[in-house]
Amino acid sequence: MPTLGILGGSEIAKMLAQAAAKWHIKTVIFAPEADLPAQQVTPHYVVGDYHDETLVREFAAQCDVITLDNDTVDVETLRQLEALGKSVYPKPETIASVQDKLTQKRTLQAANLAVPRFLPVQMATDVMQAIEAFGFPVMLKARRGSHDGSGNMLIHRSADLPTALEKLQHHDLMAEEFISFVRELAVVVARGGNGDIRLYPVLEILQQDYTCHIVLCPAGIEETTALKALEMAQHAVESINGIGVFGVELFELENGDLLINEICPYPPNAGYLTIEGIITSQFENHIRAVMGLPLGDVDQIAPATAMVNMLAQRHSIPHADILKDVLAIGGAHIHWYGKPQAQPGRKMGHITVLGYTADGAEKVGRLALSKIQL
Amino acid sequence: MPTLGILGGSEIAKMLAQAAAKWHIKTVIFAPEADLPAQQVTPHYVVGDYHDETLVREFAAQCDVITLDNDTVDVETLRQLEALGKSVYPKPETIASVQDKLTQKRTLQAANLAVPRFLPVQMATDVMQAIEAFGFPVMLKARRGSHDGSGNMLIHRSADLPTALEKLQHHDLMAEEFISFVRELAVVVARGGNGDIRLYPVLEILQQDYTCHIVLCPAGIEETTALKALEMAQHAVESINGIGVFGVELFELENGDLLINEICPYPPNAGYLTIEGIITSQFENHIRAVMGLPLGDVDQIAPATAMVNMLAQRHSIPHADILKDVLAIGGAHIHWYGKPQAQPGRKMGHITVLGYTADGAEKVGRLALSKIQL
Repeated sequence: MPTLGILGGSEIAKMLAQAAAKWHIKTVIFAPEADLPAQQVTPHYVVGDYHDETLVREFAAQCDVITLDNDTVDVETLRQLEALGKSVYPKPETIASVQDKLTQKRTLQAANLAVPRFLPVQMATDVMQAIEAFGFPVMLKARRGSHDGSGNMLIHRSADLPTALEKLQHHDLMAEEFISFVRELAVVVARGGNGDIRLYPVLEILQQDYTCHIVLCPAGIEETTALKALEMAQHAVESINGIGVFGVELFELENGDLLINEICPYPPNAGYLTIEGIITSQFENHIRAVMGLPLGDVDQIAPATAMVNMLAQRHSIPHADILKDVLAIGGAHIHWYGKPQAQPGRKMGHITVLGYTADGAEKVGRLALSKIQL
Repeated sequence: MPTLGILGGSEIAKMLAQAAAKWHIKTVIFAPEADLPAQQVTPHYVVGDYHDETLVREFAAQCDVITLDNDTVDVETLRQLEALGKSVYPKPETIASVQDKLTQKRTLQAANLAVPRFLPVQMATDVMQAIEAFGFPVMLKARRGSHDGSGNMLIHRSADLPTALEKLQHHDLMAEEFISFVRELAVVVARGGNGDIRLYPVLEILQQDYTCHIVLCPAGIEETTALKALEMAQHAVESINGIGVFGVELFELENGDLLINEICPYPPNAGYLTIEGIITSQFENHIRAVMGLPLGDVDQIAPATAMVNMLAQRHSIPHADILKDVLAIGGAHIHWYGKPQAQPGRKMGHITVLGYTADGAEKVGRLALSKIQL
């Protein structure tokens, strides 16, 4: 069986490595730091900079197929790994077309997929032009390397602009119309190298301070909206020739229209609930897709699943005793990633609950969360 | 969070380490060989003989709590680990009362639990006495270190005795009446240090050549039989003051009576199906029990679950391509342990299927199995 290399050491890499281990697929983790979550679940890892060519070769020498758990890896590193004869999935071209949010939006637009209106930003006057075109508020976004709203600044009035530009000064920028959505949705899409595709049930995402806090499966939406979301998600992943598992985030508008907000080119946070909630988890299907194995079914295990994220409240790692408290809640599946550092809003773990309704499952998850001090 | 040491490197240790990693509990594997299944899922391991005192100390220095995945570890090694200040679960006394099958049967009998009639065997005449007492056939059993019928010889007539005694000549022996059972059942029992207990649904075991081939959950038995099995299993684990997860194997007789065949003092093979079939797997509950965490619910995820074992047919490891074939079957959860050697009848992996009926789930599992060449 070929060996799988993973660029990144996050909980996503950890869950990928655990899925691979189920079939005795060996994984090698290459991450910039030691003691990351994924380094606890495999004896094979390389620690250091992705720009260190010796390390890249050392890593490549141990792997046959290579994937990633983030979209910040330099496409050059991916191309270098391909040049060393390795299979890299998603393909470097896919990552290139996704990791720059402006390119991503242009790609989606070219594929006739509905996205919020956007404009490239080179200088302050470009933002003024966006404000003129879209009206206030306008979303100013770093084009690369930002997540969970960290690289986004909402411009409510002209006076907000200097602070926003200063805060984002080290980034390439784009401006986007602000979407007043009814719901935020996500579709997890698994796609194999042969074009075979699996669309997971539409997820509903509840944010707290711009961070995903709760995910419900299935989303509480009309059947027609769900079908439209699935169709758009499939089309979006095909438009970037995605191989692996992708998260397609959508906004549902008041009139039922959908806009694609963003594509995540690796198994997304929202899809962690697929571990217990779906017959084939997104991590298992990612392994299947990148290793050239047949994709698995994506039926729900229970009528509904809810996931409640454990977001840190402080800069210190919560005490291990919280595990005792949260494990005492019946029917909750607890995941604790083992991140070496905490900061307010950082996702340290999650709670998944299966139930007959998403509401009921969410209540059990919230109850479990209320028992602990993060 | 304390670190968990595991004596043994089998797929049981692997599944325990994977359950522990879900909560970022660090595991250290101590096994006699390298390249065992568990050594693929943690970077922390010690390889060597359990009688090597330096290694035992090296292992102990890395752990706070210690458990095991087999019942062949010398009780002296366990006591040594306790003397080094480590918490060892199940307790050495529990292992001592279980690993010698004669002591085990006597312990169960002393607790007023029904077991097959048995006699200790020191010499050939003791077997003759057993034959006189129980009638033919009589089961001659090695008292220690045998599994899946490997240390058992069935004596159909006096002429079978010399061969049987020769084959088992290096073992302490016992004789047992042969039980012509209707069904073989198993109950997985989780018990915490505080006496808290969880009884998993009664499992039905289908053997093939004395090896567990298929497990069905729940067993196709009367409600009263199930309740009796659960009660006996609880009583059995309490009688040995078991802390951790145990498998209690029972014979169901024609008249509905139950006899306890054997206690497995670690998460048993039959219970692998709890990973997908039960809300808290036996591996998760074992970790909870030995780490002093609250036990989890043991409700079924679906009305029925079936597990079909992948038993090797040859002495060579089946080709990795079988994974492609078996993963193409919808709705089946595939586990491949990564054992370094194969031999006919050896369990290399298993297939778990959830369904509305045990029959239906079993059919899907058998179909998946029929697709591969082991």
